[in-house]
Amino acid sequence: MVSTALPHYQARVNRTLEQAFDALPVTDPRLLDAMRYGTLLGGKRARPFLVYATGTLLGADETTLDPIAAAVECIHAYSLIHDDLPAMDDDHLRRGQPTVHIAYDEATAILAGDALQGLAYELLANCPLPDAVEANRIGMIRALSHASGYQGMCGGQAIDLASTGQRIDLEQLTRLHRLKTGALIRASVELGTLAVPDLPAAHRQALLGFAEKIGLAFQVHDDILDVTADTEQLGKPQGSDQAADKSTFPALLGLDHARDVAQGLYQDALTELAGLPYNTEPLERFARYIIERGQ
Amino acid sequence: MVSTALPHYQARVNRTLEQAFDALPVTDPRLLDAMRYGTLLGGKRARPFLVYATGTLLGADETTLDPIAAAVECIHAYSLIHDDLPAMDDDHLRRGQPTVHIAYDEATAILAGDALQGLAYELLANCPLPDAVEANRIGMIRALSHASGYQGMCGGQAIDLASTGQRIDLEQLTRLHRLKTGALIRASVELGTLAVPDLPAAHRQALLGFAEKIGLAFQVHDDILDVTADTEQLGKPQGSDQAADKSTFPALLGLDHARDVAQGLYQDALTELAGLPYNTEPLERFARYIIERGQ
Repeated sequence: MVSTALPHYQARVNRTLEQAFDALPVTDPRLLDAMRYGTLLGGKRARPFLVYATGTLLGADETTLDPIAAAVECIHAYSLIHDDLPAMDDDHLRRGQPTVHIAYDEATAILAGDALQGLAYELLANCPLPDAVEANRIGMIRALSHASGYQGMCGGQAIDLASTGQRIDLEQLTRLHRLKTGALIRASVELGTLAVPDLPAAHRQALLGFAEKIGLAFQVHDDILDVTADTEQLGKPQGSDQAADKSTFPALLGLDHARDVAQGLYQDALTELAGLPYNTEPLERFARYIIERGQ
Repeated sequence: MVSTALPHYQARVNRTLEQAFDALPVTDPRLLDAMRYGTLLGGKRARPFLVYATGTLLGADETTLDPIAAAVECIHAYSLIHDDLPAMDDDHLRRGQPTVHIAYDEATAILAGDALQGLAYELLANCPLPDAVEANRIGMIRALSHASGYQGMCGGQAIDLASTGQRIDLEQLTRLHRLKTGALIRASVELGTLAVPDLPAAHRQALLGFAEKIGLAFQVHDDILDVTADTEQLGKPQGSDQAADKSTFPALLGLDHARDVAQGLYQDALTELAGLPYNTEPLERFARYIIERGQ
């Protein structure tokens, strides 16, 4: 259940991240502080949740999943730090707090993001794994690097920047978000599936299908919230997508149709889970949370 | 021999990088162009050379080493792209050409660097390796992520920025450069050693010792060149370290003493190689090239 499981996993991943930062030598306190600040500022920990929820429903230990979830969050945190930079989205607030380049400075924000990307791979390369899944370690690194690079998150952000102020159609907007946010959400579930040995291919495919649907639903709902929620709920200025002249699902479809699309994706996500012989309730609840949060 | 081997390896790694970029879908031509431009603009390919030279003297195939060398160069290229940004060193020229944020724009430069970091890990996660060294793949990823992150390159750049305009002593300057450039040079040799199975620990240690010495010699010589070479030779404005009020080895030690230090590190590097039962001549010649280039 999201209501109880989300805070539990948030606490676990935060503790794991704290431990990872504590383990680093304090050779450059400002950079280390900025890495910590940008990562531990708050946030829903949606991606770590997906690592934990997917892994545990398949039988993985939470302890095994801790560094994997932390690695995904390092990638997410680095992307937020860089996306907020003046040359990118130029955001001063994130989760209601000053963004890293405001709290520190631009150079430190760039380096903190860079170092967090490296830390993600260090965590995956070094974390203890049960012998039976040791062979999946490279697959985890492959999935994370693919999802976060040119063919995933970075590519999506580049398309997002290029299409700001441009009229793009629904297909292009969908592709943009599949790359920008969808790829890392999918990778979070994929890393969860790689934390157990010998998962049947059909089960893996269903879970990845679930991830793809909620990944897009997440973004559609985010666009809706930008129109309907207030600044305090968002932790950033309300209407900032509109102000930045970004294409959004409500702008292309109208608010009601955008809500229908989110609802349809939610139902499709549940359908993916329906045939699985596991207790998928935590993922189902999470999917509902995704399309209901902030309302 | 550097005179013949360096161009040979430059051509190999450039071809491998070209192939890696060609293999990417052209979903975002501007980002892909910027990644390509920032990586293939030129450069000595010192780090790929060390991967190839170390690997081949131990018996690895050049074909095995190609993607490993390319991965190291992706990390190096990303670091140059980010270091050149206005918020960092604010350099407009690199290798005699406009830097990436000048040729494209700042946002694209940030994303190109980010995506190149990811590409490095994708290359290491996906490259074919002989069965006998498959077990070393994670070690390669571990070495590269450690060397490029907070405890290596990023940490060094942060200390460099923090100490610009400050008076730092020789110990601090040495530490800065061990992290900023030394760590990745050491990792280049380490990745070469991991491309063969069962290397005796003493041989590995000697090669890493060699890498540490030439890594520092490289930087001392770079500082000397900034004082003595002209802008055309450097591919960037002569005296830019002084203009940026950076601590350098010549500034701390005087030019003659700095030259003695570079010479001493060169001799120490050769000593590390002396007891090894391999043909280390390519590494020896490279070490001489490092402390003689540009003069």
